Amino acid sequence: MTAETIDARALWADLEAVREQAPLVHSITNLVVMNFNANALLALGASPVMAHAEEEVREMVGIAQALVLNIGTLEPAWIRAMKLALAAARERGIPVVLDPVGAGATPYRNAALAELLQAGSPTIVRGNASEIMSLAGLAVRTRGVDSAASSLEAVDAAKSLARELGAVVCVSGADDHVVDASGRWATLSNGHPWMTRVTGVGCSASALIGAFAAVQPDAWRATLAAMAYLGVVGETAVERVQDVGAGVGSLQIELLDGLQLLEQNIFQRRLRLQLHD
Amino acid sequence: MTAETIDARALWADLEAVREQAPLVHSITNLVVMNFNANALLALGASPVMAHAEEEVREMVGIAQALVLNIGTLEPAWIRAMKLALAAARERGIPVVLDPVGAGATPYRNAALAELLQAGSPTIVRGNASEIMSLAGLAVRTRGVDSAASSLEAVDAAKSLARELGAVVCVSGADDHVVDASGRWATLSNGHPWMTRVTGVGCSASALIGAFAAVQPDAWRATLAAMAYLGVVGETAVERVQDVGAGVGSLQIELLDGLQLLEQNIFQRRLRLQLHD
Amino acid sequence: MTAETIDARALWADLEAVREQAPLVHSITNLVVMNFNANALLALGASPVMAHAEEEVREMVGIAQALVLNIGTLEPAWIRAMKLALAAARERGIPVVLDPVGAGATPYRNAALAELLQAGSPTIVRGNASEIMSLAGLAVRTRGVDSAASSLEAVDAAKSLARELGAVVCVSGADDHVVDASGRWATLSNGHPWMTRVTGVGCSASALIGAFAAVQPDAWRATLAAMAYLGVVGETAVERVQDVGAGVGSLQIELLDGLQLLEQNIFQRRLRLQLHD
Repeated sequence: MTAETIDARALWADLEAVREQAPLVHSITNLVVMNFNANALLALGASPVMAHAEEEVREMVGIAQALVLNIGTLEPAWIRAMKLALAAARERGIPVVLDPVGAGATPYRNAALAELLQAGSPTIVRGNASEIMSLAGLAVRTRGVDSAASSLEAVDAAKSLARELGAVVCVSGADDHVVDASGRWATLSNGHPWMTRVTGVGCSASALIGAFAAVQPDAWRATLAAMAYLGVVGETAVERVQDVGAGVGSLQIELLDGLQLLEQNIFQRRLRLQLHD
Repeated sequence: MTAETIDARALWADLEAVREQAPLVHSITNLVVMNFNANALLALGASPVMAHAEEEVREMVGIAQALVLNIGTLEPAWIRAMKLALAAARERGIPVVLDPVGAGATPYRNAALAELLQAGSPTIVRGNASEIMSLAGLAVRTRGVDSAASSLEAVDAAKSLARELGAVVCVSGADDHVVDASGRWATLSNGHPWMTRVTGVGCSASALIGAFAAVQPDAWRATLAAMAYLGVVGETAVERVQDVGAGVGSLQIELLDGLQLLEQNIFQRRLRLQLHD
Repeated sequence: MTAETIDARALWADLEAVREQAPLVHSITNLVVMNFNANALLALGASPVMAHAEEEVREMVGIAQALVLNIGTLEPAWIRAMKLALAAARERGIPVVLDPVGAGATPYRNAALAELLQAGSPTIVRGNASEIMSLAGLAVRTRGVDSAASSLEAVDAAKSLARELGAVVCVSGADDHVVDASGRWATLSNGHPWMTRVTGVGCSASALIGAFAAVQPDAWRATLAAMAYLGVVGETAVERVQDVGAGVGSLQIELLDGLQLLEQNIFQRRLRLQLHD
């Protein structure tokens, strides 16, 4: 499939495939977002499983259709488990999504990422601009888990990282940029700034990418589908919340409702997808 | 009390006892559901405490009125703590609920369950059909934390497990079956499929059973009361959510509201309880 | 600034400073409340980061503007990390909030607190009456994470603890009492009992104190500001929830909405602050 044929209708078909197949997505993720991530996958129509013991991650990968690794609250035993799971997933040929939370914030975090990348290349990397720039080896100031840079600033880093890893790289932010090793590049312009005020929305984006990549073998397209869907879900959820004078607490719930219930015509009408030449 | 006298009114009395006594329920549970479980216990009127360090679980059991063990995101140190807590609870004579999340999914999980059962028999085991069949020693395909079998298929396994452990066993699903070692068997037919699309509802069922078992010495009846209450709360919560066109995000909140606010007449009118001969 | 000039307007100015500066608050907190705490900080306008590996806590403290330590679900590696983080924070001169969850419940918990206090004095301690009395060395029966004593009973213990540690001490309860080593004492009488039926509201109070202390150098005033804001947010959230016949599930969401959206005139009109001579 060429880039030209990827449109809102095609991405919606990927969503329908997720719902039909209900892929089991194995996440080794951070302690803050586990509950929200699991609920996001369930609302989408996928099936979450979380397990992080070195003693069982290989077997759990063995029954999963995708693996998602997120280093948000890492510690040594978890990194060991992630390496085992990553290697097992590559061996089985299931997609692996890496979310390098806080890359660049501490030397330990950078060392952990280097170790992970030695254990195997992820299929897809999703992070904010600071994280992607840090992972691509650029000197960048990371401020906790927020980004100090805009996503457009990180596109060159993303392209270089994509080539180096042979992976799809997604830089999320006000615009989301999705690039791959062959040079494909698309930009999504949905979403709303309030989405950054619910913890775990970025991490959930990575989890949703796992679900789409489990059913759509073109990892670049799968990443676009997940980010596109979450973006439109997010901006419509913010509108519903603001319409009733509510805030970011309610947004958390509306996001989950939207992941389950967004209508196809709204998705197709609102999607702002730009495929670059 | 014979089975014949257990009806909606009797089960409601158990709920009132929970609210009056506000038992302290000590949970060693999985990382995904901790927050939701604690909120479910608080909404019900019980008092949750979570502590998992080997260094203190015995003392924490010492001030609790029930112990709930859930192996969802197990690791070696947690299993050691669960064994200590289980032994301490049996010594003190407080009820122990075991939720064998993902039993059968990995060899490690099965080994952990075998170890736990050697440390002491739980008072009550609650799981889905796959988990109960796996724990009863049947070959069964477990798919992550969902069940690949229906709850009725697992009733024989549940009965055999109940006799083997001298415990109450609850198989939850579209129908919930509750059996005990003496052969009592009841079926509850409340609830709604959307309840499986909020993470931790099954785990919360186990936590609520702990609260009821803390105040109702007949563990079979306590299990019925908890499952009955959650089932009616769940189906009415789904109705409220669907009435306003909302989804499974909102359901999470409505479940908690319902645990606090369900009215007695609605519970008694809607309860679908069948006591088998 | 003398105590006399601290009024609702001054405390609101502190809130505006939080929003303007969006301080990075590094929390090493318990597994149950992580998600809610992060969302509370985001709703307030601060920026949360959670990291607990000994290997990186010092560096994470190095980019944070406040540190919050909460021993709710402690284990040995986490205590070691907390000690390192506490020492690093004192060295850097950023405020440290200690939440001694369940102090007095087990000997291990008490030993952990003693170890922590040897690693450095916190700037602010916030707990319920039982926890503060236990930490002050009084024999007190702690029942799980709830308090068996009223906050007024604990004021003398709080004053003595404040002098001993050279810290601000906040005893929260139906009334919140905030004292410091120099003898200042204020009482806040906002809030609602339902706030104790959402898990993590107390822990979130500690997190919010961290955010205020990051921007307001007078730690006593910062504590007052955080507790005052949460108290008014809480009681108005309960009113909104009860007005529509909803419960403590909805309250969780309304609390977050309120942290983001409470209006200044409502805060100033409803604040019940008493400065003692």
